Amino acid sequence: MPTRPLTRLPGMTAPTVFVLSGPNLNRLGTREPEVYGSDTLDDVHAAVQREARDLGLVADCRQTNHEGELIDWLHEAVDVGADVVLNPGAFTHYSYAVRDACAIVTTSGRSLVEVHLSNPAAREEFRHTSVVAGVATGTVAGFGLQSYLLALRALV
Amino acid sequence: MPTRPLTRLPGMTAPTVFVLSGPNLNRLGTREPEVYGSDTLDDVHAAVQREARDLGLVADCRQTNHEGELIDWLHEAVDVGADVVLNPGAFTHYSYAVRDACAIVTTSGRSLVEVHLSNPAAREEFRHTSVVAGVATGTVAGFGLQSYLLALRALV
Amino acid sequence: MPTRPLTRLPGMTAPTVFVLSGPNLNRLGTREPEVYGSDTLDDVHAAVQREARDLGLVADCRQTNHEGELIDWLHEAVDVGADVVLNPGAFTHYSYAVRDACAIVTTSGRSLVEVHLSNPAAREEFRHTSVVAGVATGTVAGFGLQSYLLALRALV
Amino acid sequence: MPTRPLTRLPGMTAPTVFVLSGPNLNRLGTREPEVYGSDTLDDVHAAVQREARDLGLVADCRQTNHEGELIDWLHEAVDVGADVVLNPGAFTHYSYAVRDACAIVTTSGRSLVEVHLSNPAAREEFRHTSVVAGVATGTVAGFGLQSYLLALRALV
Amino acid sequence: MPTRPLTRLPGMTAPTVFVLSGPNLNRLGTREPEVYGSDTLDDVHAAVQREARDLGLVADCRQTNHEGELIDWLHEAVDVGADVVLNPGAFTHYSYAVRDACAIVTTSGRSLVEVHLSNPAAREEFRHTSVVAGVATGTVAGFGLQSYLLALRALV
Amino acid sequence: MPTRPLTRLPGMTAPTVFVLSGPNLNRLGTREPEVYGSDTLDDVHAAVQREARDLGLVADCRQTNHEGELIDWLHEAVDVGADVVLNPGAFTHYSYAVRDACAIVTTSGRSLVEVHLSNPAAREEFRHTSVVAGVATGTVAGFGLQSYLLALRALV
Amino acid sequence: MPTRPLTRLPGMTAPTVFVLSGPNLNRLGTREPEVYGSDTLDDVHAAVQREARDLGLVADCRQTNHEGELIDWLHEAVDVGADVVLNPGAFTHYSYAVRDACAIVTTSGRSLVEVHLSNPAAREEFRHTSVVAGVATGTVAGFGLQSYLLALRALV
Amino acid sequence: MPTRPLTRLPGMTAPTVFVLSGPNLNRLGTREPEVYGSDTLDDVHAAVQREARDLGLVADCRQTNHEGELIDWLHEAVDVGADVVLNPGAFTHYSYAVRDACAIVTTSGRSLVEVHLSNPAAREEFRHTSVVAGVATGTVAGFGLQSYLLALRALV
Amino acid sequence: MPTRPLTRLPGMTAPTVFVLSGPNLNRLGTREPEVYGSDTLDDVHAAVQREARDLGLVADCRQTNHEGELIDWLHEAVDVGADVVLNPGAFTHYSYAVRDACAIVTTSGRSLVEVHLSNPAAREEFRHTSVVAGVATGTVAGFGLQSYLLALRALV
Amino acid sequence: MPTRPLTRLPGMTAPTVFVLSGPNLNRLGTREPEVYGSDTLDDVHAAVQREARDLGLVADCRQTNHEGELIDWLHEAVDVGADVVLNPGAFTHYSYAVRDACAIVTTSGRSLVEVHLSNPAAREEFRHTSVVAGVATGTVAGFGLQSYLLALRALV
Amino acid sequence: MPTRPLTRLPGMTAPTVFVLSGPNLNRLGTREPEVYGSDTLDDVHAAVQREARDLGLVADCRQTNHEGELIDWLHEAVDVGADVVLNPGAFTHYSYAVRDACAIVTTSGRSLVEVHLSNPAAREEFRHTSVVAGVATGTVAGFGLQSYLLALRALV
Amino acid sequence: MPTRPLTRLPGMTAPTVFVLSGPNLNRLGTREPEVYGSDTLDDVHAAVQREARDLGLVADCRQTNHEGELIDWLHEAVDVGADVVLNPGAFTHYSYAVRDACAIVTTSGRSLVEVHLSNPAAREEFRHTSVVAGVATGTVAGFGLQSYLLALRALV
Repeated sequence: MPTRPLTRLPGMTAPTVFVLSGPNLNRLGTREPEVYGSDTLDDVHAAVQREARDLGLVADCRQTNHEGELIDWLHEAVDVGADVVLNPGAFTHYSYAVRDACAIVTTSGRSLVEVHLSNPAAREEFRHTSVVAGVATGTVAGFGLQSYLLALRALV
Repeated sequence: MPTRPLTRLPGMTAPTVFVLSGPNLNRLGTREPEVYGSDTLDDVHAAVQREARDLGLVADCRQTNHEGELIDWLHEAVDVGADVVLNPGAFTHYSYAVRDACAIVTTSGRSLVEVHLSNPAAREEFRHTSVVAGVATGTVAGFGLQSYLLALRALV
Repeated sequence: MPTRPLTRLPGMTAPTVFVLSGPNLNRLGTREPEVYGSDTLDDVHAAVQREARDLGLVADCRQTNHEGELIDWLHEAVDVGADVVLNPGAFTHYSYAVRDACAIVTTSGRSLVEVHLSNPAAREEFRHTSVVAGVATGTVAGFGLQSYLLALRALV
Repeated sequence: MPTRPLTRLPGMTAPTVFVLSGPNLNRLGTREPEVYGSDTLDDVHAAVQREARDLGLVADCRQTNHEGELIDWLHEAVDVGADVVLNPGAFTHYSYAVRDACAIVTTSGRSLVEVHLSNPAAREEFRHTSVVAGVATGTVAGFGLQSYLLALRALV
Repeated sequence: MPTRPLTRLPGMTAPTVFVLSGPNLNRLGTREPEVYGSDTLDDVHAAVQREARDLGLVADCRQTNHEGELIDWLHEAVDVGADVVLNPGAFTHYSYAVRDACAIVTTSGRSLVEVHLSNPAAREEFRHTSVVAGVATGTVAGFGLQSYLLALRALV
Repeated sequence: MPTRPLTRLPGMTAPTVFVLSGPNLNRLGTREPEVYGSDTLDDVHAAVQREARDLGLVADCRQTNHEGELIDWLHEAVDVGADVVLNPGAFTHYSYAVRDACAIVTTSGRSLVEVHLSNPAAREEFRHTSVVAGVATGTVAGFGLQSYLLALRALV
Repeated sequence: MPTRPLTRLPGMTAPTVFVLSGPNLNRLGTREPEVYGSDTLDDVHAAVQREARDLGLVADCRQTNHEGELIDWLHEAVDVGADVVLNPGAFTHYSYAVRDACAIVTTSGRSLVEVHLSNPAAREEFRHTSVVAGVATGTVAGFGLQSYLLALRALV
Repeated sequence: MPTRPLTRLPGMTAPTVFVLSGPNLNRLGTREPEVYGSDTLDDVHAAVQREARDLGLVADCRQTNHEGELIDWLHEAVDVGADVVLNPGAFTHYSYAVRDACAIVTTSGRSLVEVHLSNPAAREEFRHTSVVAGVATGTVAGFGLQSYLLALRALV
Repeated sequence: MPTRPLTRLPGMTAPTVFVLSGPNLNRLGTREPEVYGSDTLDDVHAAVQREARDLGLVADCRQTNHEGELIDWLHEAVDVGADVVLNPGAFTHYSYAVRDACAIVTTSGRSLVEVHLSNPAAREEFRHTSVVAGVATGTVAGFGLQSYLLALRALV
Repeated sequence: MPTRPLTRLPGMTAPTVFVLSGPNLNRLGTREPEVYGSDTLDDVHAAVQREARDLGLVADCRQTNHEGELIDWLHEAVDVGADVVLNPGAFTHYSYAVRDACAIVTTSGRSLVEVHLSNPAAREEFRHTSVVAGVATGTVAGFGLQSYLLALRALV
Repeated sequence: MPTRPLTRLPGMTAPTVFVLSGPNLNRLGTREPEVYGSDTLDDVHAAVQREARDLGLVADCRQTNHEGELIDWLHEAVDVGADVVLNPGAFTHYSYAVRDACAIVTTSGRSLVEVHLSNPAAREEFRHTSVVAGVATGTVAGFGLQSYLLALRALV
Repeated sequence: MPTRPLTRLPGMTAPTVFVLSGPNLNRLGTREPEVYGSDTLDDVHAAVQREARDLGLVADCRQTNHEGELIDWLHEAVDVGADVVLNPGAFTHYSYAVRDACAIVTTSGRSLVEVHLSNPAAREEFRHTSVVAGVATGTVAGFGLQSYLLALRALV
């Protein structure tokens, strides 16, 4: 799964990165703060925007609880030529439909970084399996909000 | 997973209960009546409304085939402080996204009762596994329409 | 596994229900109260008797640590035409002999409701499997003492 | 799972067939052409329309990335009395909700043919399992665009 | 696991055979007659007595729902030098304690024949495993009441 | 899997029984005598003939190392209306083709008894599984040459 | 596994297709008609011949219960440059030798379509696995006799 | 699972230890002496009494083949405040009811040492699993009669 | 599984070795040459004959696609006192009948060397299991044609 | 597994980070460059030193093929109060001894980041399991040399 | 696995016992004291020396994080005729090399006692498996420092 | 995994072969002689030297109990351009670190032959798995000391 380095086309001031979050991540900050920390998704998005600006990227941050919508967005990333930072939430563990959409991203030559706030390997057994990881460019997990920022940096 | 007893705030005449049904349950009554009985979902909802009224509850009955919508509703239950009676339908067996949303309900101090019309343990092998049960307050299964009514009663 | 509705024969003032509890349930109240609550089995039986009276049933409450005795009682239920509320305790997870006895109850046209005080799905892996559930009429689990009462109600 | 032969009611000029495609199939032609071929979904739908016309059928071709929408359509097929040709995409491997909706189609007396463009058995391990096949009338897999056409023909 | 041929000591007119039946077999004839036939356990015992007499054996027929009692009887068989015909009922599938007791019989030089009325291999998955068979002399299964008679004959 | 009792048609002096042995059983007596005993297959066939004569049966004894030939013979048994005593040898553990042929015998109303000289449950792990047993009428295993004779007797 | 399109060499009026059926398929029509239908194998072959003629193909129809013979025929198909329609019967589930022979067909540039009369996914667990499918060009299953005809059509 | 150190109450001259042995251990000395040694259970109990006296303990030695009786005794140990040395025999491998009773002992603050005469890890596969060990204080296995003595010493 | 060293009886000029190849090996040289090399089976047999002559052995080289024939040959090897070099082809992975025949060879005191041209451990998962290896004297795999020659040499 | 933020003690100009690489990583650059890239371990260490300097850290870079030495180093990290960036190489998949040493690091309040050059999830099945991840603070995988740099950054 | 009783050769005043501890045990006392207690390895060794002296043994106490060194020491134990008390640490769960070295000890006629400070059965799933136990003389686990002392005593 | 034929560079009189043996093989001759024979490792090395000389090779024979050292040697083999004969001992069954080092050898164009003295397939279950075989050139197992000699010959 070779991935093309982030291209900077002439006249294009900043490459776009889609920063997508899956189901239940809109409850961040209120949901089990001892696991996920007290940052809300708005906090995450704000930090991502700052870091993206520093790195010369344009971040497009979205969240959805709908598998189909997430797939639509992954297709859209291919169409606009954006790389992707994806926190698939619980879709990580069973959604082969999301996996196929991720594979469409990476086989199209874009990068896709799977991120997790917590460390799934330190939690319930079912969270040890990612059906997405095998078609992602790489993974960053366990650093809370910073997982997103490191993923952005991995794209440059 | 301690659950807070159903609170009756002063001035609030009746606590709300979300009664949510998942995929294919809108076909009740016509789908394999020898398994699911001949009651339609409207019959179920009507009986639930009657029982809720008797128990001094306000039941908000909804059905969806969309996983994302079900997750949205579970979040909404937390926001309005409602307990939940949930028949996850086939999501029971694989939707870790619904599971996470249920966990958000019960860790927020609300009760969530998993119900099934039929007895999943008496059916196909794949129905013997519930990924939701581990984060539910309790389970009522196998009593047809009455499973919903007993679940309501379990909340009081 | 069709079950006959609870019959009320002429001249018979109250149908009998066997309320049977399996191994270690005689330690209720002292054993891990954070899991099972502080009600003793006597408390359970008293509450069952009250609820049964309200429902017009005669409850015959018994507990045993002996698999063979439990099987004998299930046979006796068939002979006297009683429905059964059964908390199989740890037999739930391996006793195919108890399972076969339960099947004798339900194939004879009586109802048998499996109850659990705690929610087995939220505990150790081995408690996620019930060899009894597949031949029970239905299941009520996770509501403490109230699981028994809801099971009684499910029979009417 | 007996299936009723395709009925041609008097006055009804052509029986309708729903030709439904699941997640990511809207990317056909651009996604891994060495696996799925270079035909786009529009090409598939056009060929299906031609073949349907030749066979005296009316084909209603749709695609969705949303599990819930696919389920809605399967219910709709039952309501309008249409047979179904279904390429479930990655839902094939885990969506018991789609499976249940397919079972509603075939137990209602309609036929449902599962189709795949590629041969899932020659691909990744997880694609060897279909949770849908067990409730489908039959399967056609591995013939690219022609899988759809053979499925149509199987209905006549 | 070599087994000594049935010995006929001088002055001993007839070697004893223990014919033991496990849990729920006392319900024979009334329990699922389409699986187990309409013969009662008394019918089985009467037929066994007739066959034993014909073969010059003394049959000691017993049934119990208690695992411990069955183990006691198997020990007793060793003490009185009797061979054993054993229908372990559902103990077949999990009771390693009964297995160990059977091993005591066969390693003491006596024969032990495992019998089943029905054919366990044609029933539920869990009935395909016998933890007893590995230490039995042999097995006879599937011939109803006649399984016992053939087992007797196998001992001579 | 109901099996028809052995019919004795008028004018037919003796019903035929096919006594079939599978791969490597032609080496009996020389192959691992501590497992299989010192009787040769000729000894087995001679004893079978004697016992058949005593029981008023005509035994047709054959052995083959060829799976296809064994299947042909099972079909032939159906055509001539013979019951079958079958020692499938190692085919027991994997040949679903032989299994299907056995099912043709028993669903045609004939009896088929699976026999084994040794006790497979006391040997290597792979011998604990029989793919044939599920479609046989019954099983006799562990009694050496006598397994065949008891199987004959089970047919009468 | 790319497969060469069916070639029509100059001077060769009709390409040959081997239509091969495996063990027990010679019993078609009499064996479990509720599963396999009442068509005999002769009926299948006749229909195949008609369809082949219509499609401009020459069909060479054969059946065998012998794994080795089936392998020989698959080799022969390669030698004469024929495509193959194969119903492997129960060999589907375990014969890696047949699988290897099928791989010889498809890696030689010929097409091989696996067909099944019934839908294996709707039957016993062991029928859900096909060791052949991974090296076949494609699969058609569940349409009775018509599975063969659709497979022929898939080759053109 | 913290365990309270063995308490020596004032006026109580010697703390009691229950030394309990499960099914088939009453056959010790005669059953497979090459595995279990030639000491009888009486020898074991005598040695235990001697060692207990030396250590200032009062040993209450019992054996039973009845799972229910063993559970009763474990409850009794809690009631009289005794520690437990337990050889569960074959219950080790499947009796979750005994496991639950052991957990009642150790969660009540008493110690429970699981002992085995032989080394289960060097025997059949099924003996490698102990469902009891996870709730025991510790384990001593493989030293014959001395396993009991070391367990006693572990309590002081 | 001790094996007797190759005996050279007086007056016997050269001990015979059976060099047997299983299904599909007759296609060697044309079948997937990148896996199996371009040597044909005739090349293999010629090289084997040369090496055998050099080692003072008489090689009897045969190939078959028929499991039953291979078993017959293995029996024949025992009868003529020949050692065996066996490439079981795909029978390696499932044919317990061939395994039993190999065990007859080695328990009769002859040597049997399992050979493979390619390295099965570097190929598909199912090729990692050999049901034959456990009863073979030894194995040589991965050296193409030379695997046979090394096996011959292993016998001297 | 809470981890203490990287402490900067007064007078200590730069906190130390151990950057440890496990077996075979000394071959980087020459070993399968299409998987691991053409950077040598010296290149990695040089880049790490540069990045560490930029981040105000002191990096202590080491590599070993010896499990015991790696464990010693992890202990040393605890003793000197260093955080750890660890590429465990193949130890990732089985070395519970390394896992325990990592747990000593993180339970002592230091951070430990597991890094991988390639994406293990996109490679052989056995690489999908990490026995280390469950006790690491987090994971960075799939970005080649940059995985190390991102891990450093994750520590600040 | 018979083990020779501890020999006391003439002129040899005290038999030597190797007391060996595996990886990470040098961190004892500081590593997770709530699991392993607060005794350091020096405390353990001192207590072992005291107990050995009392028992008339010479204890040679060593610890290593290196699998190879542990194997060397086990060989050395055989050479000097010492028994072994071994706490294999995490090697317990995967090191077949250590297992083989332990087997060399016990098949040479020496005793080897596996010890654990904590109770592995009460911890993570992977700690429930010991690849060493099957070749050890016996096991003592769960008694902290005292496990070593009881093991010494088991040797006398 | 194509391997380059053994090169004979000009001026280089004899290509070097590393003959490496893993853990516990230094105990050969004394360790379980009924499994491994009575030859010591010195005997093996002497025989290897003789055979190497005959084949015009220079054999460099080494043994280690240390995984890390074995990995170092495999790297050294690549550096000096030597082929490898490797008996990994128990590392065979779990050391993915050794596997990776072997892969470095074979992907560098050298050959690596895995050898075993005994036949692992005829021993304990865990010895049936080789994590090394999948990256070796080939395997020779079961011929005692001669396995090494045949492996040498396989390299020429």
